[in-house]
Amino acid sequence: MSLVIVGTVAFDAIETPFGKADRVVGGAATFAGLAASFLCDEVKLISVVGEDFGHNIDLFEDRNIDTTGIEVISGGKSFFWSGRYHSDMNSRDTLVTDLNVLADFDPKIPESYQDCSYLLLGNLTPQVQITALERLRNKPKLVVLDTMNFWMNVALEDLMRVLEKVDVLTINDAEARQLSGEYSLVKAAEKILAMGPSYLIIKKGEHGALLFGEGQIFSAPALPLADVFDPTGAGDAFAGGFIGYLARVKTVNFANMKNAIIYGSALASFCVEKFGTERLENLTQAEIVDRIQQFIALAKFEISEF
Amino acid sequence: MSLVIVGTVAFDAIETPFGKADRVVGGAATFAGLAASFLCDEVKLISVVGEDFGHNIDLFEDRNIDTTGIEVISGGKSFFWSGRYHSDMNSRDTLVTDLNVLADFDPKIPESYQDCSYLLLGNLTPQVQITALERLRNKPKLVVLDTMNFWMNVALEDLMRVLEKVDVLTINDAEARQLSGEYSLVKAAEKILAMGPSYLIIKKGEHGALLFGEGQIFSAPALPLADVFDPTGAGDAFAGGFIGYLARVKTVNFANMKNAIIYGSALASFCVEKFGTERLENLTQAEIVDRIQQFIALAKFEISEF
Repeated sequence: MSLVIVGTVAFDAIETPFGKADRVVGGAATFAGLAASFLCDEVKLISVVGEDFGHNIDLFEDRNIDTTGIEVISGGKSFFWSGRYHSDMNSRDTLVTDLNVLADFDPKIPESYQDCSYLLLGNLTPQVQITALERLRNKPKLVVLDTMNFWMNVALEDLMRVLEKVDVLTINDAEARQLSGEYSLVKAAEKILAMGPSYLIIKKGEHGALLFGEGQIFSAPALPLADVFDPTGAGDAFAGGFIGYLARVKTVNFANMKNAIIYGSALASFCVEKFGTERLENLTQAEIVDRIQQFIALAKFEISEF
Repeated sequence: MSLVIVGTVAFDAIETPFGKADRVVGGAATFAGLAASFLCDEVKLISVVGEDFGHNIDLFEDRNIDTTGIEVISGGKSFFWSGRYHSDMNSRDTLVTDLNVLADFDPKIPESYQDCSYLLLGNLTPQVQITALERLRNKPKLVVLDTMNFWMNVALEDLMRVLEKVDVLTINDAEARQLSGEYSLVKAAEKILAMGPSYLIIKKGEHGALLFGEGQIFSAPALPLADVFDPTGAGDAFAGGFIGYLARVKTVNFANMKNAIIYGSALASFCVEKFGTERLENLTQAEIVDRIQQFIALAKFEISEF
């Protein structure tokens, strides 16, 4: 059951109230791939980097992630993003976006990736997401799409075309409201599910996440954290943990989707504890089990009499 | 196990995007008392109204709520509040606050209330909350305090004095941040618990609520609603449902507090479905059971293997 992740691999420069990180490895496929690698042993990335990425590729190989699908452009420069978080850590300013090799990203599917059962289309130009999906000879068992408000603003038509072809969409609450034109998330979900996906995950940051599908709703808690060090990549780690769990349990249904959200939330909660990928690089299975148990304790209640 | 609720009983005029309600019965003790009356059969109110309140008192008697402690001031006018909600329903403007008889509210405890085991100090001047508490001859088994940012701004010293004397504090997330000076709710809770209460409930509106105490955290979901008709009184209904449940089960511990939050959330979710007290007046036990089961389904997940 191989899991293919299409997305950016980049250099980030990040400023938060807790400090700065210059030119650390970032990108949606990076965070999602690392997160997924703790749950699924066949994670394969599709991305593009410049020659300057160099030995940073070891980051993936150390986690047994297949990098055959990461194209390295000779003489090219990797995508670079720089941002500064405000003191509430919920909002940020983008300081620099240098697309570099990402501007001409033409996602190629290595032959060894054609067995893909689980596909994550990480946050990226919808046109590239469509191309990647179309180049897979067989429709994967599950396609998860991550996107953001930026693509709703500049490429809504393409985004709507991708939406028709995916099973699960993950966006945040503001994006769900923007995409649907509805303030109530229940009404927003109804409209968005009519656009194509069978399941919608609405991420609410420190307030957890909602899953809509099969006529049901699941509300997942977020772990209340004393310190959020760097929120970069949390959404990608969430998506990677989510699909990584489903690839591991091999059955897609509402009950497993709920658990997948808890795993995604757990991976995201680690991601924000250090700058960039540092925490995900140094994570252990024992720490994940412990964190999942914290989520169980956090949400559990038992009402036996009415 | 009698439950005494101290708070306002008022007339409200409300405007929401869904319509207007002129001069309907409102007030913290009203919503809290109605909510509690579905869980506890000995609910007793302490408040003050003007002669203009008239036969509206029947609202309580119909729910078997003891009104001995509601003082009626001859020739006086009841507290009047008017507000307009913005389209997101999360923020509102206060248009009119006529304190009227509330300005001189001196809470008197009828002799028949002195057996009070559970006390809810509804949102009110901290000085009145202290007076009510001091006039009870025996310390109740559990004292729950509800308050708001307004009292933090104008009567912080008095509020800190009440905080020392209560077991549970309920406030919203912005208020927890204001009271503690901490952005992280984990750090905020730590500071607030050091101010006196053993338990802190942080209400997050459509994002549910967090309970802190006994070194544990519980995250309760909110029911995602298609329509919020009128948010007035939701916080009071929550507090009333919360303490009403604890008065019913008669044992105060973390497990019961968690269930109490679910009951409080359920009562609040009904409250917002119609203007003013209308929905709480016409609620049935069967509807409450059904709603609690919705909360259980909403939050439940089972991870058996790691």
